Amino acid sequence: MKLEQITKELQTQQADAAWITTPLNIFYFTGYLSDPHERLLALLIKANGEQILFCPQLEMEDVKNSPFEGEIIGYLDTENGLDKYPLKINKLLVEAEHLTLHRQRALIDAFGVQHFGDIDQTIKELRNVKNENEIATIKKACELADKCIEIGVAFLKEGVTERQVVNHIENEIKAYGVNEMSFDTMVLFGDHAASPHGTPGDRQLQNDEFVLFDLGVIYDNYCSDMTRTVKFGTPSDEAQEIYNIVLKAEQEAIAAIKPGVTIKDVDDIARNIISDAGYGEYFPHRLGHGLGLEEHEYQDVSSSNTNQFVAGMVVTVEPGIYVPGVAGVRIEDDILVTEDGHESLTGYEK
Amino acid sequence: MKLEQITKELQTQQADAAWITTPLNIFYFTGYLSDPHERLLALLIKANGEQILFCPQLEMEDVKNSPFEGEIIGYLDTENGLDKYPLKINKLLVEAEHLTLHRQRALIDAFGVQHFGDIDQTIKELRNVKNENEIATIKKACELADKCIEIGVAFLKEGVTERQVVNHIENEIKAYGVNEMSFDTMVLFGDHAASPHGTPGDRQLQNDEFVLFDLGVIYDNYCSDMTRTVKFGTPSDEAQEIYNIVLKAEQEAIAAIKPGVTIKDVDDIARNIISDAGYGEYFPHRLGHGLGLEEHEYQDVSSSNTNQFVAGMVVTVEPGIYVPGVAGVRIEDDILVTEDGHESLTGYEK
Repeated sequence: MKLEQITKELQTQQADAAWITTPLNIFYFTGYLSDPHERLLALLIKANGEQILFCPQLEMEDVKNSPFEGEIIGYLDTENGLDKYPLKINKLLVEAEHLTLHRQRALIDAFGVQHFGDIDQTIKELRNVKNENEIATIKKACELADKCIEIGVAFLKEGVTERQVVNHIENEIKAYGVNEMSFDTMVLFGDHAASPHGTPGDRQLQNDEFVLFDLGVIYDNYCSDMTRTVKFGTPSDEAQEIYNIVLKAEQEAIAAIKPGVTIKDVDDIARNIISDAGYGEYFPHRLGHGLGLEEHEYQDVSSSNTNQFVAGMVVTVEPGIYVPGVAGVRIEDDILVTEDGHESLTGYEK
Repeated sequence: MKLEQITKELQTQQADAAWITTPLNIFYFTGYLSDPHERLLALLIKANGEQILFCPQLEMEDVKNSPFEGEIIGYLDTENGLDKYPLKINKLLVEAEHLTLHRQRALIDAFGVQHFGDIDQTIKELRNVKNENEIATIKKACELADKCIEIGVAFLKEGVTERQVVNHIENEIKAYGVNEMSFDTMVLFGDHAASPHGTPGDRQLQNDEFVLFDLGVIYDNYCSDMTRTVKFGTPSDEAQEIYNIVLKAEQEAIAAIKPGVTIKDVDDIARNIISDAGYGEYFPHRLGHGLGLEEHEYQDVSSSNTNQFVAGMVVTVEPGIYVPGVAGVRIEDDILVTEDGHESLTGYEK
């Protein structure tokens, strides 16, 4: 099914082959995941469906032990991997959003490529709709994110630093089998959270402020990504008002999600609630984004996305209000689009 | 000095500006470090030395608080950042090894770029030679890597799993101020280490086998990267023979490093020792690589690099022999090239 979509696109664009180099896309098609650093790792898919994986020679054993069943071309650091599979290609589809100018030149040199086309959108649309296995895996990643918030909240006490809370969460969650977070865990106290991409540091928790947690885990290569902003004591009236506006924006946006609804309309729901409350300028980012093998993936949940939701999509919904010197509040859940509506995969109270 | 090299290269290539998009290169020039994920983060350097940083609007506060002193152009998720700074560019130097085809098209659309040239090599050569501050920082990162090995060795006992040792090291090193490892910590037991890029798992430590540690930390944005293969009990005679060959190869290669020596000659020294002992085919990777803001950076220490060592370079030296079913041994140190020779920045016994 995945492979069929690629060969179909090759036909449509009258291309000879596709060249896939994004590690997670390679994993998506082959089941083999590796970070090649600056080395070449590439999957060549020919019009007849034949698949060839180019990898460093020292990864060949691992590829053989993976689900991938195509041909494997290994190369040494002293060799040009492309030279090890002589081939002439007239038109090649590539990931324009991943292939660099440098790698493009190498393809022209090695394969004599005359024309390039894009394969990005085809892969994005495949990955956009998750199958049952993927959904089950993301669900598990979301449950573990809920657990992280629970661990973090239980650890809050006056004087603890943001960094200490981050470390505590990341240590404790390992007992649940989590080896990697999906991005740098964010724990921010009080007005420090007004920098929406701030970095946890030595700031100490004081009474009567909000604590913002933004975190996710990687479970079996799939990501979760959630945010909770929780009270420690009684934050100022203005901070609590901001919280209530964000919560309303988030809940009403989520309530509108179902197949056939235009994505931008859901962003509008949240944005209008925040603007009507007078905080429009303090919500400077999109409402959310796709979630899967990456913590940010296709597609944007933003005011410019005129696509519709379809069943099998998983997106974040994460409105926020950040008023410098006052408070930063964001609330984020991971939402699965179902046949007849939606299901929140994250569940920690809010 | 850094900026001068860029404006000099602009003159040489008769270009109007340079466009830098690799986050670590942006940090190198501005002191501002951020992972923009799929968003645009770019530093424009004009021929007159003027610097303009394009960033998501939600990062503007952080940029203002950084050492960067040039102009800041923030953009919303719904805007094209490039449109916010109208400019015509005839020739633009870009990082051909980082700029994607997709981003290149956006530059043509926004700035009407007619010609492109490369700025990669200029930046690599700048980063290749570390200044005193950078060396002091890397030294500290190396001391912390030594400490990681010490922590890991002390934790070895029969029945412990690779994954448990990894977790223990990464937890304990936090007490020394380390928040991030420079890559996924590798701890492999016995013949499992014969897969040179294997993944730590549930394999349990048995008596009389080698344990391979390959790890590094990030300290103040700079990396260390070291490997030790240590005895647990008394490994087989063949495994110990392999260890002694690798150690000899590493020590003799390091001993030859000084300014003016050709890099490939040092790779040859190690490779010849391993080949002469009959294990040539089991050493399938380069001898080492540059180290700094990245754990793998310019330049290769390989049999094809005809450049010379210069004072201020920091490289890894890491020969290995991997015999499937028997043993995998690698020994790696981080070596600073000094005015009159070299200094090993990592020091754990071997």
